[in-house]
Amino acid sequence: MTAFSNSRKVRIEWGDCDPAGIIFYPRYFEIFDASTAQIFEKALGMTKLQMLKDFEFAGFPLVRTRARFLKPTRFGDDVIVESTIIFGRSSFDVEHRLGLKGETCVECSEKRVWVVRASNGLLKSHPVPEAVLAKFGG
Amino acid sequence: MTAFSNSRKVRIEWGDCDPAGIIFYPRYFEIFDASTAQIFEKALGMTKLQMLKDFEFAGFPLVRTRARFLKPTRFGDDVIVESTIIFGRSSFDVEHRLGLKGETCVECSEKRVWVVRASNGLLKSHPVPEAVLAKFGG
Amino acid sequence: MTAFSNSRKVRIEWGDCDPAGIIFYPRYFEIFDASTAQIFEKALGMTKLQMLKDFEFAGFPLVRTRARFLKPTRFGDDVIVESTIIFGRSSFDVEHRLGLKGETCVECSEKRVWVVRASNGLLKSHPVPEAVLAKFGG
Amino acid sequence: MTAFSNSRKVRIEWGDCDPAGIIFYPRYFEIFDASTAQIFEKALGMTKLQMLKDFEFAGFPLVRTRARFLKPTRFGDDVIVESTIIFGRSSFDVEHRLGLKGETCVECSEKRVWVVRASNGLLKSHPVPEAVLAKFGG
Repeated sequence: MTAFSNSRKVRIEWGDCDPAGIIFYPRYFEIFDASTAQIFEKALGMTKLQMLKDFEFAGFPLVRTRARFLKPTRFGDDVIVESTIIFGRSSFDVEHRLGLKGETCVECSEKRVWVVRASNGLLKSHPVPEAVLAKFGG
Repeated sequence: MTAFSNSRKVRIEWGDCDPAGIIFYPRYFEIFDASTAQIFEKALGMTKLQMLKDFEFAGFPLVRTRARFLKPTRFGDDVIVESTIIFGRSSFDVEHRLGLKGETCVECSEKRVWVVRASNGLLKSHPVPEAVLAKFGG
Repeated sequence: MTAFSNSRKVRIEWGDCDPAGIIFYPRYFEIFDASTAQIFEKALGMTKLQMLKDFEFAGFPLVRTRARFLKPTRFGDDVIVESTIIFGRSSFDVEHRLGLKGETCVECSEKRVWVVRASNGLLKSHPVPEAVLAKFGG
Repeated sequence: MTAFSNSRKVRIEWGDCDPAGIIFYPRYFEIFDASTAQIFEKALGMTKLQMLKDFEFAGFPLVRTRARFLKPTRFGDDVIVESTIIFGRSSFDVEHRLGLKGETCVECSEKRVWVVRASNGLLKSHPVPEAVLAKFGG
């Protein structure tokens, strides 16, 4: 399976930052979540909303994540987030690297599962559809 | 050095949850950040605002974190967050366990550094003050 | 129709505050949204999750809101939010007053509509169920 | 004084939305706050961080806001936010219109004050500097 990568620019806003004047770190995870969604949007040519309709899935919640914070970022910074996805059967891994002016500020790894809504209303894992994998060149 | 623990109850709100109906995971890190702040508040008998004045520090930003998400939580859930802190010299580790009805939903480890604002306005690490450690029984 | 009121304490957290050291005002609306949810929980004796199941509704989105910010609040502040609800037919108004140590910091008015999910998947307004009004003494 | 306008595109993300599948409305205020910051960045040719250094101010907190929510937006929507600013002496008004595919979804008015940090550490209002007004053609 080939890895698939995407890069996007994100502006760190005033409201993302805390009284120390640097980004409040949970905002990084919001950024990474949107970066992961964008990988799928770029590969599939549709938004997550359309994906939910076409693939009857219910999202790709995190199973685990870890992150290292190397340099702080501040409001007004335009950071670059580079994300690479590698698929398993019912899960996938994403590596994010958030950088500013060529320097890495945050590294983050996440493992997510593809879930569908079971008949009892709860979420359950499900193999990533072949039609999705095909779009990633799988 | 003795470990110091704290436990608190947190309500998961509607606005913490995403279109899948479960908590949007960056909210967990907001919860853990507040839990870490509360450990200090309980041990020192003062809020973080007062700490900033008394100890001339500028916060305790994360160096790294990792988390495992075992069971989702939903709006209306009253979860229990148990947090344990262990001090190093200029840093400290916190282990968080977020549970619902006795079952662990999230486990999170974080390493943070004690920082002060240097004369150039930037943040730099600094040994955790003895007066702080003493309050933790160190 | 009698008005129904509720009061709750909320801690302003470090992560709710911006580089000016005061609360980032969108956080107030998160607080008010949770306060409105708590009014229903107190009156009906069930969480919003249970309400969604029992009343087949899809939430009570805002139609309009206005707020005045009189005094800033800071991390570590334990504010009191007093909320009063008055029902219309398919909508209701909530008045929130957020205070600290007896002084009003924020006043907010909101109008919300009771919505259900139509067969086409979109949200549409619906009269507030009699069973709900009855719990408020209506 | 001439009014000054700015327009920007904003992506509504999965994490901005609630279990009803539509945006959680406090996120709109985060968007509007960033839109107001961008007006200044465009007019002054510097970020808010640089403004804080050059003008020794401490932000422009809200005094009051009101908003009408006409149509919901969803994750994957690319909305357009048009913002117009009109200056008073120590305050300014901003009108935001958030639209999708030509239709207005949200209208918001805000009044903000220009504040500086007084010698006692508290925030106090201050006339908007002439150098700032000049950049807006005032």
